[in-house]
Amino acid sequence: MPASEFDIIQRYFREGAGRISAAQAERVRCGIGDDCAVLSLPAGDEMLLSVDTLVESVHFPANYSPQLLARRALAVCVSDLAASGASPMAFTLALTLPAVDEDWLAAFSSSLADAAAEFGMILVGGDTTRGPLCLSLQVMGSAPAGQALLRSGAQVGDAIFVSGHLGDANAALAFLNTESSELLPSQRELLARYHAPVPRLALGQKLRNLATAAIDISDGLVADLGHILKASGVAGVIRLSDLPISAALAEHGGSIDSALSGGDDYELCFTAPASRRAEVVALAQTLNVALTEIGSIQAGSGLRCFDAQNNVYTPVGGYQHF
Amino acid sequence: MPASEFDIIQRYFREGAGRISAAQAERVRCGIGDDCAVLSLPAGDEMLLSVDTLVESVHFPANYSPQLLARRALAVCVSDLAASGASPMAFTLALTLPAVDEDWLAAFSSSLADAAAEFGMILVGGDTTRGPLCLSLQVMGSAPAGQALLRSGAQVGDAIFVSGHLGDANAALAFLNTESSELLPSQRELLARYHAPVPRLALGQKLRNLATAAIDISDGLVADLGHILKASGVAGVIRLSDLPISAALAEHGGSIDSALSGGDDYELCFTAPASRRAEVVALAQTLNVALTEIGSIQAGSGLRCFDAQNNVYTPVGGYQHF
Repeated sequence: MPASEFDIIQRYFREGAGRISAAQAERVRCGIGDDCAVLSLPAGDEMLLSVDTLVESVHFPANYSPQLLARRALAVCVSDLAASGASPMAFTLALTLPAVDEDWLAAFSSSLADAAAEFGMILVGGDTTRGPLCLSLQVMGSAPAGQALLRSGAQVGDAIFVSGHLGDANAALAFLNTESSELLPSQRELLARYHAPVPRLALGQKLRNLATAAIDISDGLVADLGHILKASGVAGVIRLSDLPISAALAEHGGSIDSALSGGDDYELCFTAPASRRAEVVALAQTLNVALTEIGSIQAGSGLRCFDAQNNVYTPVGGYQHF
Repeated sequence: MPASEFDIIQRYFREGAGRISAAQAERVRCGIGDDCAVLSLPAGDEMLLSVDTLVESVHFPANYSPQLLARRALAVCVSDLAASGASPMAFTLALTLPAVDEDWLAAFSSSLADAAAEFGMILVGGDTTRGPLCLSLQVMGSAPAGQALLRSGAQVGDAIFVSGHLGDANAALAFLNTESSELLPSQRELLARYHAPVPRLALGQKLRNLATAAIDISDGLVADLGHILKASGVAGVIRLSDLPISAALAEHGGSIDSALSGGDDYELCFTAPASRRAEVVALAQTLNVALTEIGSIQAGSGLRCFDAQNNVYTPVGGYQHF
């Protein structure tokens, strides 16, 4: 491909950089187009960062809509900032493309700019290469020093909470390739949860001084809560009857396994002292987001799930990266 | 691949995190293994960052040695920090692998840890996915606020300098697949320049208050100096007889085109006021690195090259990204 096509790509991605607030612009001393981007942190803040790679046919379907891909890729990555309690700031995009397709690039970059504006992020740099379709995004945010939420702070006696509903996105995998006109309204609802996850940014920031540990549910509740338990050196108990299941998911059955082991929801799972339960309830009202207590932290290791009859339930495994 | 192999990969990359100084550790509040890494900047500093993707058979040969790949990938990326005058800090790695090959991972991760220690970097996060071999590295460094070197500061009357020698790595492409035993000593020297580029970190940092603009030469002098000229809104004139050509490259002929348009050297090209020429000479002695004045900045646009007879020379184009 000639150099002019490389320039085309750069042009597509620079446009989104204009739609930022003055406060954000102040933080980006140099954006796209130099050897390095230059970011300025608020005084007393630390920088939080996370990187996610999405490969075609592995993390998203082949021939996936470029609009949906751009928004979903950024949302998935920003969700890590949410889980850490970060205020979003900027991101970079390493984009590998099989060929320069201007229609694809126009749709992708315009959707990416919309998503960036939605999440309060600025694209500050990147790299474009030729190869099988693959995106690597690194997101950066900030939080007051020492206030980032980690996986390792859960304490015996804490209550375990999750935001929103679990299992919706996983259930949508079954009809990802079905024509929209053939879907029931409830199926369309589940599908939207897969295509357009909402990173819980406001929740994460409010949890800075309330949660003892947090993670976003990308690989399924069992796997991700498992990371908190392992990092914190504690055990967890959850009650299946308390898992928040949407009406749409309930309609489609198999909801417990989907809620326990299905990935792609990008809700937050967090722990907080049981004595501060009322603050979590108040926060749910303030933010207008469901926050459901699903269990508790105990001494020991591992996760046990109990059904309504108090029998141990063994969930099927969560998403495996390889 | 089962989850245990994902764990294997994580284990390989955590090991390198132990070989850091106390001062570096102080900057990394949270490294590999949480939703986000947490970095603390020195007071008054800005964060500088850059991302580079390397795809097999595009940016490095198929079946390339994992030792060489790891060091070269990090060096290439760190070179952007050097060009911006940053002090290196931390990096993330998004690694896409066709399969889990433990021998390959052991060699790659050990070489990456060595390179990280050499450049003063800490691996703080990453992502591993399955797919065609591809690496995306993001490097982060810091510099005192307002002191980052940009491409846009060149002024009419500035002198143009380059570090080291030009064209060596490009010339090595001709015998990249030749058995080492069949190579002349000079060919081995050129090959080493391709395999193991040295990012000019110390030079970049010393140039913070001396250079008006800087870039690293990854795509060839003509292309990269062209970026400075365009970003600064000026023209450049270079004298071919002044280009620093190594004895090894001279032996292999075609040196002028290689020096003008060959990529992969990762030397710095920078501009500085002609009145501060003596400081550049002194800096070359302090750092024991060749710094050669090759031309000057003039009013206008574009780059002109003159040969020893003062005739205009039209170089062949530099590396194209697509």
